[in-house]
Amino acid sequence: MTIAIVGGSGPQGSGIGVRLAAAGERVVLGSRDAARAVAEAERLSEAHGLRGSLTGAANRDAVEAADTVILAVPYTGHTELVESLAVPLSGKLVISCVNPLAFDKHGPVGAEIPDRSAAEEAARLLPESVVAGAFHHLSAVTLHRLEHDLSHEDVLVCGDDQAGKERVMRLAEQVTGGRAIDVGALRLARHLEPFTAVLISVNKRYKTNASVSLTGIGKGEK
Amino acid sequence: MTIAIVGGSGPQGSGIGVRLAAAGERVVLGSRDAARAVAEAERLSEAHGLRGSLTGAANRDAVEAADTVILAVPYTGHTELVESLAVPLSGKLVISCVNPLAFDKHGPVGAEIPDRSAAEEAARLLPESVVAGAFHHLSAVTLHRLEHDLSHEDVLVCGDDQAGKERVMRLAEQVTGGRAIDVGALRLARHLEPFTAVLISVNKRYKTNASVSLTGIGKGEK
Repeated sequence: MTIAIVGGSGPQGSGIGVRLAAAGERVVLGSRDAARAVAEAERLSEAHGLRGSLTGAANRDAVEAADTVILAVPYTGHTELVESLAVPLSGKLVISCVNPLAFDKHGPVGAEIPDRSAAEEAARLLPESVVAGAFHHLSAVTLHRLEHDLSHEDVLVCGDDQAGKERVMRLAEQVTGGRAIDVGALRLARHLEPFTAVLISVNKRYKTNASVSLTGIGKGEK
Repeated sequence: MTIAIVGGSGPQGSGIGVRLAAAGERVVLGSRDAARAVAEAERLSEAHGLRGSLTGAANRDAVEAADTVILAVPYTGHTELVESLAVPLSGKLVISCVNPLAFDKHGPVGAEIPDRSAAEEAARLLPESVVAGAFHHLSAVTLHRLEHDLSHEDVLVCGDDQAGKERVMRLAEQVTGGRAIDVGALRLARHLEPFTAVLISVNKRYKTNASVSLTGIGKGEK
């Protein structure tokens, strides 16, 4: 299995990519600028002993090489980008970790968008793909610190295709070494995505990189 | 200090009330039906050894007796109820734990409302009150099990008045015995409230009473 990360030269995308490659996966970082993706993949591969492989390519080439694609782009330009990749994304599992946010003098807040969530927008634009949402709440900073244990952070996964969602959960467990939680329908992405605004606000107040854990579930239950 | 709970004969309101009374606070459960609030307060007082006091009254009488008021009502009827209590709520600290939710065959989802969150609606309707949001994610089931340790659950508090928010945080620490986290501006209630739909969906899937903890903050930091 090859995993492409669209927006893979950004901090979130490259952070998820390096964690997956460290866990043994074959990952292609995609970027609008192929040279930038190649350079980032080389830098990360040299900096870390990765069990899997991490390479770089143009977004379209990355998607064509993959069976599973993670969308890790800013919401700005999301619509056009996803539309432009609809054909190569056809038949594939697409995981959105896009967080539509706005910032003003009162801090971060979820942006209101026509489809209510980036994941729902992707699902509308990609009728031939299986779309799920995940990885919204992982901090790019701690993703890149491979020595930082993420196993206490939960990856909340939403989607309408159960088999696809279970593949996402297996991947999420590789990223954090911890739990993935199936929260339910894809439309719940409209609540997962803007919760990132809460975390960013907390980060500023507490000078940290906060993430989410749910209490009351399974192993380690309290 | 007396704390009134509007909607205090409902499961969430009475659960917060009994926890506060167990921690030593003076609490008045309010209800549209005063007799129902009185009966619920008597039942809970007899069932538990409460360090503080728990009594019942009509919503308006409860509010008039209090300096701090917790709104724990369903969103249906919220607008009219808050409007009707604007005068007795004037000058007081008002804590909204209202979750505007909708349910259909796909499960729970956040309801879209004109002010975007119940807390923001309350702030608009109560210009003479200090409004904060908190307690959205505590499970009524576990609140009522006083022997159930809630100290690992975080109460996320939002508000635009720092002094008021700090009072809410002290109360929240009494409810759970754990942490309260200042997440920032009141408008972030629009992300806290519908996150409850995610928790309800998780509860159904995992047959539990899930709540929220943030990772990366202060004591017990990971």
